[in-house]
Amino acid sequence: MKKQKLIYGITTLICLLGFTACNTNEAKEIIMKNHTKNTKKYWPNDAQLVISFSMQFETGGQPEGAESPFSGNPLPKGNPDMPAESWFRYGAKEGVYRMLKLWKKHDIHVTSHVVGEAAIKYPEVAKAIAEGGHEIAAHGISWSDQWSMSYANELDFIKKGIDTVETITGQRGIGYNANWLRRGPNTLKVLQELGFLYHIDDLSRDEPFITKVRGENFVVIPYTLRNNDIVNIEGKQWSPDQFLAQLKAEFDQLYEEGNTQRRMMSVSLHDRIGGAPSVVHVVDEFIKYAKTHENVVFMRKDNIAKMIKDDPNTPIDNSELEYNK
Amino acid sequence: MKKQKLIYGITTLICLLGFTACNTNEAKEIIMKNHTKNTKKYWPNDAQLVISFSMQFETGGQPEGAESPFSGNPLPKGNPDMPAESWFRYGAKEGVYRMLKLWKKHDIHVTSHVVGEAAIKYPEVAKAIAEGGHEIAAHGISWSDQWSMSYANELDFIKKGIDTVETITGQRGIGYNANWLRRGPNTLKVLQELGFLYHIDDLSRDEPFITKVRGENFVVIPYTLRNNDIVNIEGKQWSPDQFLAQLKAEFDQLYEEGNTQRRMMSVSLHDRIGGAPSVVHVVDEFIKYAKTHENVVFMRKDNIAKMIKDDPNTPIDNSELEYNK
Amino acid sequence: MKKQKLIYGITTLICLLGFTACNTNEAKEIIMKNHTKNTKKYWPNDAQLVISFSMQFETGGQPEGAESPFSGNPLPKGNPDMPAESWFRYGAKEGVYRMLKLWKKHDIHVTSHVVGEAAIKYPEVAKAIAEGGHEIAAHGISWSDQWSMSYANELDFIKKGIDTVETITGQRGIGYNANWLRRGPNTLKVLQELGFLYHIDDLSRDEPFITKVRGENFVVIPYTLRNNDIVNIEGKQWSPDQFLAQLKAEFDQLYEEGNTQRRMMSVSLHDRIGGAPSVVHVVDEFIKYAKTHENVVFMRKDNIAKMIKDDPNTPIDNSELEYNK
Amino acid sequence: MKKQKLIYGITTLICLLGFTACNTNEAKEIIMKNHTKNTKKYWPNDAQLVISFSMQFETGGQPEGAESPFSGNPLPKGNPDMPAESWFRYGAKEGVYRMLKLWKKHDIHVTSHVVGEAAIKYPEVAKAIAEGGHEIAAHGISWSDQWSMSYANELDFIKKGIDTVETITGQRGIGYNANWLRRGPNTLKVLQELGFLYHIDDLSRDEPFITKVRGENFVVIPYTLRNNDIVNIEGKQWSPDQFLAQLKAEFDQLYEEGNTQRRMMSVSLHDRIGGAPSVVHVVDEFIKYAKTHENVVFMRKDNIAKMIKDDPNTPIDNSELEYNK
Repeated sequence: MKKQKLIYGITTLICLLGFTACNTNEAKEIIMKNHTKNTKKYWPNDAQLVISFSMQFETGGQPEGAESPFSGNPLPKGNPDMPAESWFRYGAKEGVYRMLKLWKKHDIHVTSHVVGEAAIKYPEVAKAIAEGGHEIAAHGISWSDQWSMSYANELDFIKKGIDTVETITGQRGIGYNANWLRRGPNTLKVLQELGFLYHIDDLSRDEPFITKVRGENFVVIPYTLRNNDIVNIEGKQWSPDQFLAQLKAEFDQLYEEGNTQRRMMSVSLHDRIGGAPSVVHVVDEFIKYAKTHENVVFMRKDNIAKMIKDDPNTPIDNSELEYNK
Repeated sequence: MKKQKLIYGITTLICLLGFTACNTNEAKEIIMKNHTKNTKKYWPNDAQLVISFSMQFETGGQPEGAESPFSGNPLPKGNPDMPAESWFRYGAKEGVYRMLKLWKKHDIHVTSHVVGEAAIKYPEVAKAIAEGGHEIAAHGISWSDQWSMSYANELDFIKKGIDTVETITGQRGIGYNANWLRRGPNTLKVLQELGFLYHIDDLSRDEPFITKVRGENFVVIPYTLRNNDIVNIEGKQWSPDQFLAQLKAEFDQLYEEGNTQRRMMSVSLHDRIGGAPSVVHVVDEFIKYAKTHENVVFMRKDNIAKMIKDDPNTPIDNSELEYNK
Repeated sequence: MKKQKLIYGITTLICLLGFTACNTNEAKEIIMKNHTKNTKKYWPNDAQLVISFSMQFETGGQPEGAESPFSGNPLPKGNPDMPAESWFRYGAKEGVYRMLKLWKKHDIHVTSHVVGEAAIKYPEVAKAIAEGGHEIAAHGISWSDQWSMSYANELDFIKKGIDTVETITGQRGIGYNANWLRRGPNTLKVLQELGFLYHIDDLSRDEPFITKVRGENFVVIPYTLRNNDIVNIEGKQWSPDQFLAQLKAEFDQLYEEGNTQRRMMSVSLHDRIGGAPSVVHVVDEFIKYAKTHENVVFMRKDNIAKMIKDDPNTPIDNSELEYNK
Repeated sequence: MKKQKLIYGITTLICLLGFTACNTNEAKEIIMKNHTKNTKKYWPNDAQLVISFSMQFETGGQPEGAESPFSGNPLPKGNPDMPAESWFRYGAKEGVYRMLKLWKKHDIHVTSHVVGEAAIKYPEVAKAIAEGGHEIAAHGISWSDQWSMSYANELDFIKKGIDTVETITGQRGIGYNANWLRRGPNTLKVLQELGFLYHIDDLSRDEPFITKVRGENFVVIPYTLRNNDIVNIEGKQWSPDQFLAQLKAEFDQLYEEGNTQRRMMSVSLHDRIGGAPSVVHVVDEFIKYAKTHENVVFMRKDNIAKMIKDDPNTPIDNSELEYNK
């Protein structure tokens, strides 16, 4: 028993040494003692923090010259970029399947934003996602700029996407993610007309909110650039340990705030980037870390939207009213 | 008792392993024994190190196409960049409030550089900063280049800023920060004419100093690129653990130098960047780390300027005399 | 005996603290207990993971203005860039020899992709590689774009390379790596005509596969950008600790997957980059780490290709059929 | 005694956990047991590794628009860039003095490459360097491209530099460093004519060597991009912990190689960059780390050149013979 105490004593000291260090259940218990639990709950399901993963499935839908490790030095138009094409293919051959195993291992369901043309090219991948119990959300029929479309074209673009993906997967998207987040001023009205429940292309808050579109409630589930593989791994060129450090620091702060506010954490992974072994490995580490905390709930975005859309604690934010009248 | 010694022995060994590792009070005590304290004091208030945070509030004042994760790939003029706008909005919806909680938790008062148009757009945010006991410093009426203005225009630009912010917050700025630090050759004379006490747009020293403007003393409280979120998190694209490593390494060196010299450490955080969960988390870690050291004092810049402006130990540096005659 | 247990207890706790931490044999043993070994084997040689290093020897073949730390600010054509030339020379004077010592120390044989003109310029280096028991693979006669060549020119370009290098080293290449991976649509047909067994310029999978070229089997041993020194150390500008973190995270994931799938890990090092002291140091660390795991096998790519080309478990992937008919 | 053993046991385990971790003398002793010392010596002074620091003093000599955190977004010609000027001034006001204290604390003498115009602008700084016992080496009269000069102009440019700096510091440079390493094809001949002993603008080896210039021996002390603050801290935008990781990994490899080869490690720091608190802090950590190893010798480059120029073990490398005839 005394030796037991000694081990705990040492653990405590070691655990105090650095914020990245304390991943064990034992260590957490010791630290949690200093944590005064608030009895008030901020989510309808009493979560202290809701985490939602986005898994983009886009491979196969990319246009010529789409962003890749080769696109900075593009070939003249019309020349197939053979290694670049193989780089994209990785998402369909390895990336999505690896992530699906990760979600299954942790019994997590995620939101998958599926580009229509990717599902056409690789229907087996789209079906495997749906069969894993994940939300099939909309991401347009193709990998194209959307912000400059007319209302009618944008409606057609989005509708073709959900029709196509529904035919393949049996699920009709009710959540939307625009290419590189760049919706236009009409997008929310178009989504409303098509019966969508929510969109994610907003970075203004750390919790979902309601915005009025033509006077009706529309749910916004904020997306993330901070916990986004395409931004951090490809764009900022972080190594996987940096991505893990970011996920943990973000979690630690939001989890603590979850004691006194409604807080949500969004993480985004794309087939050919987030599906790499090293990235999945650190996301696995992150999930294990998050799970050592009480009342952390992993949810699909459609379920979050349904849960909070009529909840009186959900904030209403009409910052974009000028566009949504 | 012997086990106690054993634990300390282990702690010492562990703590010697790396410079990032020793954050605990116990560990510090052990290390501090090797630290010969100088009896001479270099600051009027006997601090060994003065730390001053800057918290820029700018959101809402940004012009079209202002620097953001989206500005590298700008939309044609006249198209609203919806996700970019939501990214800026984060500063007013989450960022400033999160930082205000951090300052309150640690009982620290900071200097907030407030753009006039940001205060007009989000007066509740500007007021919350002032009500937290923080210094409201000037940052121009709008988010614009200042280095190319005529003397009269620059005076008008700065005066409008302090008049506007004073109306909203009740505080009149006496410290100045130019957009991207880029004051012009007239700026100090303009500031002097408007009754300012100090400016921060100088990177030449690790302590405040006096410079002559039209023959009168003017205080310079050096700013920082090294401990600056916009430079490091957005510009250099560091992960939060890197920002923490920088803050600690900078602190360790300046704190040690504080034994034999007057030393000051400046840290800068912007609403939409420094206000992110992961950044606030590591700044929180940094503050905890700094607080394990004796005689570390956190101060607003106006109070630093008042404290040292007539102190005989304050250096006088007239490197820019050609402009300030 | 009890103290022994105590030490193990502490080790376990420490080892649980972070994924980069557990490099010791002892620590591994403890962790391995949780590892249920699958009895089914996925490689013909029962490996759980096959690791293959590529060592590019290119120095001396570089054209004027080739990518280097100086090429971002090029001199006008015709001016020798003296420090840039000395930077390249490092590969032949230090880099390859340092890596050869590393391979020898660990009794590993690698695949060396040798540019013909590099072997002409530094035959002693090319010979030293061959004498070390390493595979001499083909990398073209010169450091030139290949994707835009006609069929005949491409055949000539590749044939000159293998003829030249065979004359110098006594080995005729049967594996191919194109400049910056950029083969063209004819490349596989050309390689087949020249009797090549495999190529590596594909990023779509984490295991070798068969693709049909003019109806015959051709082996693809996927290459890597993720574990590639030129991409990460020069391109992404990682410090060596980041490269090590990437290698370990990649290994951990693929090794675990090796329990239920055939998995391979490719690592790529170039003479003047991977041959630097700090990079070799962390690759050494990585190899030591990998070797603490059971059934990790290091192989040359020609031996991998021979081992799996007729194995029924090797996947067939005809994603590029349109080019290879 | 048994507890003592227990502590050592734990230390050993901890120390085996990662290559960055073992900085203590005690830990080193344990590890050193595995280190079989070679009795043959490779340096005339029996060093296992020679480390040489370069400290560039350039501030005050910069032309308008010289590289700085502000130069990526330059002001129109003729507008003083006030914060950029203050950023440069830091080198003369803080940076050099901070480094001088570091060298003194560790009783190390370094080579300082002094730009003539910097010494003219800040003679007190140049004198302080010389008075610290450091080598005053040449770096040209001004901060200008040198590779395109005629023979006569280049001779004049270099001669003015050494004449000027000698007048101020009393030391005449015998070692040369060109701006951004970019000497031209005549540089070595010019240096020889002016009586120089060595130059550093070569990256091809990890040890000094002899090259023939007009048939006479000329010493090359290779410089470094890998351990260079301007390349890593400003260019690659590393945080200081990354710079430390690089220095340690480089050291570990070269020190080990020093058992069987002559090895040298060069580290380069510039006044306004390497003189920052966080950088000096990690260089201090590095020096402490290096000093825990036996037979590590810190030397000025002139002393290295004198020591090895007639030593039969010094390699002769005439790779640039075409220019130096």
